Amino acid sequence: MKKIQVSIAQLDNYGPWTVSPEPKPEAFLQMLQSRLFADLEEEISDLGGLAFITRYDNTIAISNGLTIEDHEKIQKKIREKYPVTVSFGIGNAETAYPAQKFASEALQDTGSSQSAKRLEEVNGETVQFPEESQVQIAHIDINHVTGYTDIEPIYDTHQLIQQVYLSLSEALVSKKALVFYTGGDNFMAPSNGLDKEDILEVLTKVEEETGIKLKAGAGRSTNAVEAARLASEGLHDIRDNETDENVIFKEST
Amino acid sequence: MKKIQVSIAQLDNYGPWTVSPEPKPEAFLQMLQSRLFADLEEEISDLGGLAFITRYDNTIAISNGLTIEDHEKIQKKIREKYPVTVSFGIGNAETAYPAQKFASEALQDTGSSQSAKRLEEVNGETVQFPEESQVQIAHIDINHVTGYTDIEPIYDTHQLIQQVYLSLSEALVSKKALVFYTGGDNFMAPSNGLDKEDILEVLTKVEEETGIKLKAGAGRSTNAVEAARLASEGLHDIRDNETDENVIFKEST
Amino acid sequence: MKKIQVSIAQLDNYGPWTVSPEPKPEAFLQMLQSRLFADLEEEISDLGGLAFITRYDNTIAISNGLTIEDHEKIQKKIREKYPVTVSFGIGNAETAYPAQKFASEALQDTGSSQSAKRLEEVNGETVQFPEESQVQIAHIDINHVTGYTDIEPIYDTHQLIQQVYLSLSEALVSKKALVFYTGGDNFMAPSNGLDKEDILEVLTKVEEETGIKLKAGAGRSTNAVEAARLASEGLHDIRDNETDENVIFKEST
Amino acid sequence: MKKIQVSIAQLDNYGPWTVSPEPKPEAFLQMLQSRLFADLEEEISDLGGLAFITRYDNTIAISNGLTIEDHEKIQKKIREKYPVTVSFGIGNAETAYPAQKFASEALQDTGSSQSAKRLEEVNGETVQFPEESQVQIAHIDINHVTGYTDIEPIYDTHQLIQQVYLSLSEALVSKKALVFYTGGDNFMAPSNGLDKEDILEVLTKVEEETGIKLKAGAGRSTNAVEAARLASEGLHDIRDNETDENVIFKEST
Repeated sequence: MKKIQVSIAQLDNYGPWTVSPEPKPEAFLQMLQSRLFADLEEEISDLGGLAFITRYDNTIAISNGLTIEDHEKIQKKIREKYPVTVSFGIGNAETAYPAQKFASEALQDTGSSQSAKRLEEVNGETVQFPEESQVQIAHIDINHVTGYTDIEPIYDTHQLIQQVYLSLSEALVSKKALVFYTGGDNFMAPSNGLDKEDILEVLTKVEEETGIKLKAGAGRSTNAVEAARLASEGLHDIRDNETDENVIFKEST
Repeated sequence: MKKIQVSIAQLDNYGPWTVSPEPKPEAFLQMLQSRLFADLEEEISDLGGLAFITRYDNTIAISNGLTIEDHEKIQKKIREKYPVTVSFGIGNAETAYPAQKFASEALQDTGSSQSAKRLEEVNGETVQFPEESQVQIAHIDINHVTGYTDIEPIYDTHQLIQQVYLSLSEALVSKKALVFYTGGDNFMAPSNGLDKEDILEVLTKVEEETGIKLKAGAGRSTNAVEAARLASEGLHDIRDNETDENVIFKEST
Repeated sequence: MKKIQVSIAQLDNYGPWTVSPEPKPEAFLQMLQSRLFADLEEEISDLGGLAFITRYDNTIAISNGLTIEDHEKIQKKIREKYPVTVSFGIGNAETAYPAQKFASEALQDTGSSQSAKRLEEVNGETVQFPEESQVQIAHIDINHVTGYTDIEPIYDTHQLIQQVYLSLSEALVSKKALVFYTGGDNFMAPSNGLDKEDILEVLTKVEEETGIKLKAGAGRSTNAVEAARLASEGLHDIRDNETDENVIFKEST
Repeated sequence: MKKIQVSIAQLDNYGPWTVSPEPKPEAFLQMLQSRLFADLEEEISDLGGLAFITRYDNTIAISNGLTIEDHEKIQKKIREKYPVTVSFGIGNAETAYPAQKFASEALQDTGSSQSAKRLEEVNGETVQFPEESQVQIAHIDINHVTGYTDIEPIYDTHQLIQQVYLSLSEALVSKKALVFYTGGDNFMAPSNGLDKEDILEVLTKVEEETGIKLKAGAGRSTNAVEAARLASEGLHDIRDNETDENVIFKEST
């Protein structure tokens, strides 16, 4: 059975760096983290993968198609551009949750996130691409979110979206998938192995918990960029009323 | 009584732009959003304010010291740099939650977030700086988070931090404060009017709900950059065991 | 008499860094240099100054209005963002050429550009702002350059512009002014003390040497941003045929 | 015989944009141009090419290995990131100068650089890669430049380097090669077809004209990134006194 590959980028010894010699200005850290994420996204997506905002000091990416050497090239570019460096753990499995678990373990095996000795490690197992490779991503959003954005206080809508995010992540992890917030009212769920029934079940559970109605386009391909493209296309079809279903699947041919 | 000023930056007609003429690649949107946030942070913090990651299409900032003209200059720089534009709503109040509510209303009065007609509006009321201006920010983090990061799957720790975030935001909003996730295990809470007792109460409530122990440094000054600096310095003191309290306050003199 | 202030930003120990441990990829150096220049420009122009492309490892800026402390803040932002650091020399004089000479000497006094020991120095004398401060900048361009760009090989036009640049710089330095290439067919000349006659003489000399006809708008103000704005406005007036002169002066009131 | 491929990136209708509705602040244009160049460099070098600073509104790149589709992907990334767009002309020949001439003509055939109608064109002929592809790049620098940088006024050294640049470009164009300034005391010369004798002749001519002694490492490969890497390695060998020649050649195997 085909597999999804997860890479975790972790800044080397970042915590100590942020307070050395004294706590660095918060704004500088925010700027660094956001620009570094954007650059990781650019590097990884140029190669067909997709990085998702996680903790900023740790970034999870779906990386099918990226070799060990590709990871090393990215490390090198980061090193020559930033005052910080990055290590990578890589894992793979038939579903996304265990793949990130293996990637975490591979990373943790190289040393502590707060170790001054660990530097630019790459550890873990990649998937043969494209033969053994498959990525399914569901692009999920909130129905009629403008109704909130234009009327409610912005922080209230933000809080509501965070509730939806947490509810989604609990429902999806229980099915061995993952989900990330991608801004606005959008979520992306690496969800190999889930079918339409599974996703509808997740959306229904979230609606019961939060009162928020969701819809989803799911795409399936050999890499993340293409899977996400199909997913967004599917979601677009639902928004355009080209279907009256809440979940549609698209597969690359 | 002195007041906190909140600015909300909202991308003009961003939703429609992201799917025009067809859904733009997810990676491009992630890159644009993160870089735009970093640039907003840079502009705003250069003037003594602080922007916080919110929804990316909407960014909330504590903006004491920024005039209407400052907001217009930021708009102009964004316009000449990006393919998108931004509108601002500004509000102020004795506490942070109503200040963002007034900022939201000022923004919403200028037109819908999805209107093709609304372009680079600035609306709302600033606070006289520094006379009427005060910002209190608490920098909150998780005790011994490396114990999680180095042992648990990265997504699990991410999920745990999201639970803490949601729990914190409910506890703080009930006290008319706000809180934002700033990466790693860090949160920043604009919290004018809360004293040590209030913050301890919040931390205790979150610990009861999530099992996670937190600590906080709170800083108070006329602007956000300085309040956050004092807050981080306070948190640093706790980490360095210079105090055995879980919350300490610092005020600029 | 009022003075122009020049700051020179020099990367610390950059030459050795570029070949350590082996020559870094040329593309990485180009990217770093260009982004670092853009960020220096952003920092400096936010404070009313203007940086000009020079050698990339050395950047010359007109910096009236920037204090020593401002230079230190810029150093700090660069340090937290890049893998390299920067030192500054500052000089001032009634005209631009000696001001850059004094800035060079102040910088050179802090140690060699290739010393591993010199780190983030700031040395030199600022001008009292705005009392003693004056900046005159001439914005010079080539008449009808599109006639070349659209017909000649791009490298030929590039070479022609380089000839004009060199000819301009010789003519202007002989009058104690400076000139920088700002892209396209544009040049900016910090030129305190030159009047319309002087500038016409320069343009005529360049035309004799290169066969290229030039025009110039010159602006005069207390800082570089405003002087350049007036200069560009003047040039725009000539392009729009609002005057049949080849050189016009504008002064802020 | 094998060929070098040149791409010219030209901003669409940039001149008019810079003065619309009024002249944009000079600093904004400098920032935009430098960041856009850095991004073009990043995109092109990720694919094995190299872009060189030229006029900023026009950038010349050695692009062996980049297909038409690659150019279109770069256009798309620029469009979603910047308020401006870019068109490409592509040319190839046995030597660099005619290749840029053909690229210029291909670009000019798509419309004027100042036309509001021309938008994101790609026109011209690529070289079969790697079969028909060859790139020779010479990395040239000034002997003991620190002796100038640490002693002379910075602008004087800058002016001297510009004289060397112009002298180099005249000598190299006469041999159907090109040369670009890459910052510091560095030049890169796409120079297919020139042997050691030719390059020595160029360096001697420049020394006669300017009094400046130069040295060169030349690299030859199927693409620009690798040719430049070999060239820099060669130059490094000369600096390290591993050879007492002033020019050395390296070829990828």
